[in-house]
Amino acid sequence: MNIIAFYGSIRDKGNSEKLADIALQNLAVTKIFLKDYHIDPISTHHHENDDYQKLIRKQVLADIVLFVTPVYWYGMSSLLKLYIDRWSETLRDPSMPNFRERMRAKEVHLITVGGDEPYIKALPIVQQTQFICDFLQMKFAGYIIGKGDKIGDVLTDKNALNSAAHLNHYFKDLINS
Amino acid sequence: MNIIAFYGSIRDKGNSEKLADIALQNLAVTKIFLKDYHIDPISTHHHENDDYQKLIRKQVLADIVLFVTPVYWYGMSSLLKLYIDRWSETLRDPSMPNFRERMRAKEVHLITVGGDEPYIKALPIVQQTQFICDFLQMKFAGYIIGKGDKIGDVLTDKNALNSAAHLNHYFKDLINS
Amino acid sequence: MNIIAFYGSIRDKGNSEKLADIALQNLAVTKIFLKDYHIDPISTHHHENDDYQKLIRKQVLADIVLFVTPVYWYGMSSLLKLYIDRWSETLRDPSMPNFRERMRAKEVHLITVGGDEPYIKALPIVQQTQFICDFLQMKFAGYIIGKGDKIGDVLTDKNALNSAAHLNHYFKDLINS
Amino acid sequence: MNIIAFYGSIRDKGNSEKLADIALQNLAVTKIFLKDYHIDPISTHHHENDDYQKLIRKQVLADIVLFVTPVYWYGMSSLLKLYIDRWSETLRDPSMPNFRERMRAKEVHLITVGGDEPYIKALPIVQQTQFICDFLQMKFAGYIIGKGDKIGDVLTDKNALNSAAHLNHYFKDLINS
Repeated sequence: MNIIAFYGSIRDKGNSEKLADIALQNLAVTKIFLKDYHIDPISTHHHENDDYQKLIRKQVLADIVLFVTPVYWYGMSSLLKLYIDRWSETLRDPSMPNFRERMRAKEVHLITVGGDEPYIKALPIVQQTQFICDFLQMKFAGYIIGKGDKIGDVLTDKNALNSAAHLNHYFKDLINS
Repeated sequence: MNIIAFYGSIRDKGNSEKLADIALQNLAVTKIFLKDYHIDPISTHHHENDDYQKLIRKQVLADIVLFVTPVYWYGMSSLLKLYIDRWSETLRDPSMPNFRERMRAKEVHLITVGGDEPYIKALPIVQQTQFICDFLQMKFAGYIIGKGDKIGDVLTDKNALNSAAHLNHYFKDLINS
Repeated sequence: MNIIAFYGSIRDKGNSEKLADIALQNLAVTKIFLKDYHIDPISTHHHENDDYQKLIRKQVLADIVLFVTPVYWYGMSSLLKLYIDRWSETLRDPSMPNFRERMRAKEVHLITVGGDEPYIKALPIVQQTQFICDFLQMKFAGYIIGKGDKIGDVLTDKNALNSAAHLNHYFKDLINS
Repeated sequence: MNIIAFYGSIRDKGNSEKLADIALQNLAVTKIFLKDYHIDPISTHHHENDDYQKLIRKQVLADIVLFVTPVYWYGMSSLLKLYIDRWSETLRDPSMPNFRERMRAKEVHLITVGGDEPYIKALPIVQQTQFICDFLQMKFAGYIIGKGDKIGDVLTDKNALNSAAHLNHYFKDLINS
């Protein structure tokens, strides 16, 4: 059982990361902080020197994909969206002919934290993630929405903390089964 | 009456652009094809040499903002999201202290085209746009969803074409009033 | 090609009906004005004397099901919801063992009119209808949202009128093909 | 601090009720099981002999309104929708001229349980509830979605149970403050 987590925040130790820390406690996880990588926007041209290929090759090895993103303007962060948009390239990439098949078996989770009524206003991200999963026949296994604006705020959202602790148990049970 | 249109597609003459062409026919519009600009992801660091400042300064001069984006992975394109995420920077930018006030008066429209059940699966983009407008107290005046995958497909979506023609009339009436 | 239309309004000649009139012009349609029937809420008890059985037996004979409902409190009207909730009963009804199979082939359309920002605030009805169709493997072929509050208002919503005229053409093409 | 809970299920001791039991443990609550009342559909005619007036007069006395409903066909139950649709009547009722003002101060919570991917497919109910609250300027303070089909299923949805326990603490804190 192999977990990869993609972090979309531009901050270190921001709220979404802190909530994910609880969900991932004491687990071996491949953590990708997208702010530390360079990913070009998808284009009709060829990409050669960015970090996308390295990351997508790690992703296909995982069983579980966790997206961790702050709510930026009521969507996933552009760092994360840049990465996902490039999947279209991989779907046509002859060097990875089985991308669709390899994604199909995966379980996807989402952790997102926003400052402005996130329980309502992050729902477009949830629905988008469902549609992404449907497209690749992945299983959207769950999402956690937390509330927080300033760094650390989310640690006062007890409901989100409970859900993250619950997800941590879930992951551990999966690994031990 | 001053219209600025932001295009999020990576293609020339793609479906969302073609649908917008109908809506903008015979109108003087500032057209920003985001693929022709370089916009860094928002970060905690300073940006100096990209095109964002130039674009946001054009945006605040407009009365109407039109977002034209293909549905990429059930969200707006990352090119467009990159641009919008940077608004957070402008909200804190002492060189543009009245950004919020200047946006408040504006009317926002959305044109989006997708290949996979867009009338349902583009709705998260619509809801996100509503929340963006609410945050800045802009008026989300309308959206058009078109269906199309290969270049030119959208020209067979008669309902979308009608709506675009209708929007063209609406813009012309506004300008003449 | 056999169309059945269910009307959820409590009014005669209300906005949703007027919009549907355009979509159904010159077509033979079985029109069910739910306000003229008595349908008990679904319950754990047996229903004997209401009109539900009569209506559901008409529905399964149709190829196309059109729901016409005002937006009441941001949902379909309770008259319509009363009717749909009873489908759960039919799913277990030994006297109609093939309900699921008979619904599967059908095409569903939705026409809904609301007074308060319906283009955004009627979207939960659209999403609900999609899920209903998914459950019974029906095809949710399209929806029209109109704006109107007082009787006749919708006749000034040109975009909705265009869409209704377009749907009328679509139905006629289906019937002739 | 005065809580009123409206239950939309047709069953006794169904999943949504069980989840609400946890949220309401050891609290004095006015519980309205809508299946035990008769509420006519809203109509253009006068209603005289049903239970609506009795219930709405209790509602305006409460500080907190909790809706407890199973997900029926991806919406709130028709029993609950029947009741809410009648609010339109009260908005025009000269015998309760201050309905809007009295509702404005209230806090609304939603507990809903469904069997078919409720974390995604109950979201239209959540969004509808938000719009209802916006219309009357009530505060939509939170929602809990549980998963369950057969009676008792929800008691295995640990995340929902945690959220319900959390809501119970929240209510108790409110009452003691």
